[in-house]
Amino acid sequence: MFQAIHQAFTDKSEGEQGPKRLAALRKLLKARNLDGYLVARADEHQNEYLPASEERLAWLTGFTGSAGFAVVLPDIAAVFTDGRYTEQLLRQTVRTAFAAVSMIEDPPSAWLRRHASPGMRIGYDPRRHTPLGLKRFREAAAAGGFALIPSEPNAVDAIWENRPAAPSAAISLHPARLAGKNAVAKIRELQTWLTNEKKVGLVITDPTGIAWLFNIRGGDVPHMPLPIGYAVLPAKGKPTLFVDGRKLTDKVRAALTEIAEIAEPIALEAHLDQLAASKAELLFDQESASAALIDRYEAKGGIADATVNPIQLRKAAKTAAELDGARAAQLRDGAAMAEFLCWFDAEAPKGKLTEIDAASALEGFRRATGKLKDISFDTISAAGPNAALPHYRVNDGSNRRIGKGIFLIDSGGQYLDGTTDITRTLAVGKPNAEMMRRNTLVLKGMIAVSRAVFPKGASGAQLDTLARQFLWAEGLEFDHGTGHGVGSYLGVHEGPQRISKLGTAALEPGMIISNEPGYYKPGHYGIRIENLVIVQKVTVKGAEREMHGFETLTLCPIDRRLIERKLLTKDEAAWLNVYHARVLKALSPLVGKTTKKWLKAACAPL
Amino acid sequence: MFQAIHQAFTDKSEGEQGPKRLAALRKLLKARNLDGYLVARADEHQNEYLPASEERLAWLTGFTGSAGFAVVLPDIAAVFTDGRYTEQLLRQTVRTAFAAVSMIEDPPSAWLRRHASPGMRIGYDPRRHTPLGLKRFREAAAAGGFALIPSEPNAVDAIWENRPAAPSAAISLHPARLAGKNAVAKIRELQTWLTNEKKVGLVITDPTGIAWLFNIRGGDVPHMPLPIGYAVLPAKGKPTLFVDGRKLTDKVRAALTEIAEIAEPIALEAHLDQLAASKAELLFDQESASAALIDRYEAKGGIADATVNPIQLRKAAKTAAELDGARAAQLRDGAAMAEFLCWFDAEAPKGKLTEIDAASALEGFRRATGKLKDISFDTISAAGPNAALPHYRVNDGSNRRIGKGIFLIDSGGQYLDGTTDITRTLAVGKPNAEMMRRNTLVLKGMIAVSRAVFPKGASGAQLDTLARQFLWAEGLEFDHGTGHGVGSYLGVHEGPQRISKLGTAALEPGMIISNEPGYYKPGHYGIRIENLVIVQKVTVKGAEREMHGFETLTLCPIDRRLIERKLLTKDEAAWLNVYHARVLKALSPLVGKTTKKWLKAACAPL
Repeated sequence: MFQAIHQAFTDKSEGEQGPKRLAALRKLLKARNLDGYLVARADEHQNEYLPASEERLAWLTGFTGSAGFAVVLPDIAAVFTDGRYTEQLLRQTVRTAFAAVSMIEDPPSAWLRRHASPGMRIGYDPRRHTPLGLKRFREAAAAGGFALIPSEPNAVDAIWENRPAAPSAAISLHPARLAGKNAVAKIRELQTWLTNEKKVGLVITDPTGIAWLFNIRGGDVPHMPLPIGYAVLPAKGKPTLFVDGRKLTDKVRAALTEIAEIAEPIALEAHLDQLAASKAELLFDQESASAALIDRYEAKGGIADATVNPIQLRKAAKTAAELDGARAAQLRDGAAMAEFLCWFDAEAPKGKLTEIDAASALEGFRRATGKLKDISFDTISAAGPNAALPHYRVNDGSNRRIGKGIFLIDSGGQYLDGTTDITRTLAVGKPNAEMMRRNTLVLKGMIAVSRAVFPKGASGAQLDTLARQFLWAEGLEFDHGTGHGVGSYLGVHEGPQRISKLGTAALEPGMIISNEPGYYKPGHYGIRIENLVIVQKVTVKGAEREMHGFETLTLCPIDRRLIERKLLTKDEAAWLNVYHARVLKALSPLVGKTTKKWLKAACAPL
Repeated sequence: MFQAIHQAFTDKSEGEQGPKRLAALRKLLKARNLDGYLVARADEHQNEYLPASEERLAWLTGFTGSAGFAVVLPDIAAVFTDGRYTEQLLRQTVRTAFAAVSMIEDPPSAWLRRHASPGMRIGYDPRRHTPLGLKRFREAAAAGGFALIPSEPNAVDAIWENRPAAPSAAISLHPARLAGKNAVAKIRELQTWLTNEKKVGLVITDPTGIAWLFNIRGGDVPHMPLPIGYAVLPAKGKPTLFVDGRKLTDKVRAALTEIAEIAEPIALEAHLDQLAASKAELLFDQESASAALIDRYEAKGGIADATVNPIQLRKAAKTAAELDGARAAQLRDGAAMAEFLCWFDAEAPKGKLTEIDAASALEGFRRATGKLKDISFDTISAAGPNAALPHYRVNDGSNRRIGKGIFLIDSGGQYLDGTTDITRTLAVGKPNAEMMRRNTLVLKGMIAVSRAVFPKGASGAQLDTLARQFLWAEGLEFDHGTGHGVGSYLGVHEGPQRISKLGTAALEPGMIISNEPGYYKPGHYGIRIENLVIVQKVTVKGAEREMHGFETLTLCPIDRRLIERKLLTKDEAAWLNVYHARVLKALSPLVGKTTKKWLKAACAPL
């Protein structure tokens, strides 16, 4: 059988150690003259994926979900997460040590406000919080009469035995041929913008911004080629790139030295202190710059302007070369998906496959392309009730046999030329009528977004309902956004583009975004269908406005066995038939004989 | 023919007086040691409709549009408006005196920042601006090194000869039978809320809030029964209502005295000063409380919490009695509309009618119900290119003869039991194919909103695209929101509910809202179709969520001659046929013989 190498299926939680570690932390806090501590799931860059050395929340509490926070007080402590991870939190943490709290219904700051006594001293690590993230805590402290005390180094680190070392993966140069624009040009454009905005410089704290600006990639976190580091870009002159020197080969160092000064991350503060002494007004990214950096800069006399990261929009609107790369990556990934789906259709009905088998096999087909750098996130391979958890991750404890009904698989690959993300819901045996009807409602929403035409300037928030309207008409709904931005051999989640009621950023040509409505029946099954699309200008005959629409990037059959034909309009069926004809034509030359035959049937017109 | 009594068709602009009045204002400013002045289109309550005594902008500049602002400096002055009124601004004001500026592209604060010199003293009337409205001016002043000086009384008033007196229309008691809840119960509920929120009291500066809370109506502004005044509601004890005593008959005063202390508006400041002396934390409505009130309250030691008006949501979700009233008003109004449409179909083809004739006739049919208190806004009666201006108001100068093609009429009535607002687009002769196609696209959007089913908690922003999608698909768009909230014998515009990309308030059962997509071809024609709807809970078989939808309130035929049948889906055509059957059944008993016959044809199934 297949063996996954990019994904582990063991539950890494050491939740049973929680009470002992919590006691050790409280002892340390006492020694520091603190009554409590905030434990964020965050590194110094607010990265979505964390290096092992930054997994403090998981180490202390046992909770490994991707959205979490802990607050420790003398007699009580709590771990917070959202609805996606409630069950996991309850399973992974020890109740006598940690209360389990919904961060939506009772945010950490509100909880702290109720539980902290006046006069208490609550510590926090100023490198792991942004001023924006601390705002509510500061308000709670003012209202509750307790104090928030920056306290470094992080209190958890001080008791964490055998803490993994910080990552130092090699940095590689990302070819300008794939990036579509060389670093010099990007630097110059940003500097022109800074000059026009009358800003002295920009502090880059988001490593995806560094990757984009300098055309480099790294490997410091799982599943994305992130080079952790900082940069300072002055409006005039060479930028300074602050990265661990061990990450640079002589060749890479030589190339980077042509466009930037290279320094160790530890030199950043002294560099900023110098600028602060000259009272320079610097831009900081409000989403990723830590309170430690901003507070220090201001304390030293500088003017810190915490605002929207100006790199974000530039990175999101891909170059023609990046879009060509994305198309090539999707074609390759689609062929691997087709091989997988053909294999799955042969194996699944035998009733022996497990979720881990499916995830491992899919990784195997992707690796067989010879181009896979990593998977772009831990595959969501979900059978039966597991599929009703939109963010389910399989491990040895949860692993289910794939039975009759439907099976959901959400996965992606990191290739040098692009990042993919695709979800398919698959029939195993004969799905029941309810599954087919609801799968078809989800598909109708997905097709409505795919076919959408909208005026320039329209946002993802204005498209979100298109994906939901058919479910709503039957009293159904799904509790996640319809789509997220996707990077170019970088993060599988990137902003500002999104299709969600919160997605107020305008959709600009060249942005890549997912289109993935779903439906989840708790305790029973889950459905999601996901393609990636590119925002593009479209020509509409007689149009009075500049109009935008989508080019579908993902090439892979959508399971016809799960479609209730009579629920589709003529236009919807036509869209699917045209899509399948395109998939068949594109993938056939790239797959083996068996899969080619399977593909022809899977892509037959409705 | 008919004669309108609630609407005047003369252009009230005295724009030619602008240069002289501007010179007088500058002279006065000099005497006050000021270099400039802000002239808002606002009274002390930020009312949408202003009493004549508050029309300072119109008097000074000649510009009578409903969105405007002026800034006066020593050597330059500007009047600002938005795209709806650009042409009107250019026509009504003298260019040598006032620059005409777009408030969207160059907001007054930005314009002032560029044109004011450091050290200048710019005056403003603190009673006609909210702190929120002044925020950008204060930032501009800080950045530009000039000063903003509160300067009362309003500088325009000091030079305005024959300024109309402040209104003092009689206040009437709005029957609890129509309001559905008596004032005592409303006061008690708000007081319970204030107590739970740990607030000492609420300052009510929005007269629609006073009308709602005390179940009273007035007549201080055109087209809505507004009782201008203030109130202070303490968390415990009797509220105080500050209104001009001349507005109260002995009977009304006696009734109000049972639930409130009555005082003159001039007593408000002393009342607040007393509360401030006790350092009370009071809520102020951030949308309507003036800087004068809030700044003074804080200067005297009080804590002013400027926030969302807590009355707004309570007023928006109507009681069962208010909804019954709305249904009765709409039925009556629909019958008047049907009489008008029947008359119009007979008269318009003769080619003699003008826009003013149509508006006057419609008012006549509404008055003939015997129940009309006022029209709810100046009727938009628009032929040909005039209809391409969504907010067009006809006057003697603009009045067009109604020719062949299409005609747009947007109007409403104020009845004791409800406020109406309806738009119909009508065929005159044979409209061309483009008009029919685009009218049908607008209708499809209007039907999509009418039929929408959405989960509890969904906002109007989540529905707005439903109204636009069919226009978008053909490269077309309209530049206004899809719908606004409507009051109960009160404002024809009320918040927080709206259907617009900016409408983030959840749609709650009982809210009344308009559904009015449109399409405008500049220089040629305009289309809009508007019904009012009530948000209600709906039962969907098998629903997993609590779902909401709309009950259509408006009862009036939609012009079948303007529908391209083959563009409608079966479901859309069915919706229209069911609607027309309902209209026919409801209105037939209420109209004359000729109209009854006309109605039968107008409501025939497609």
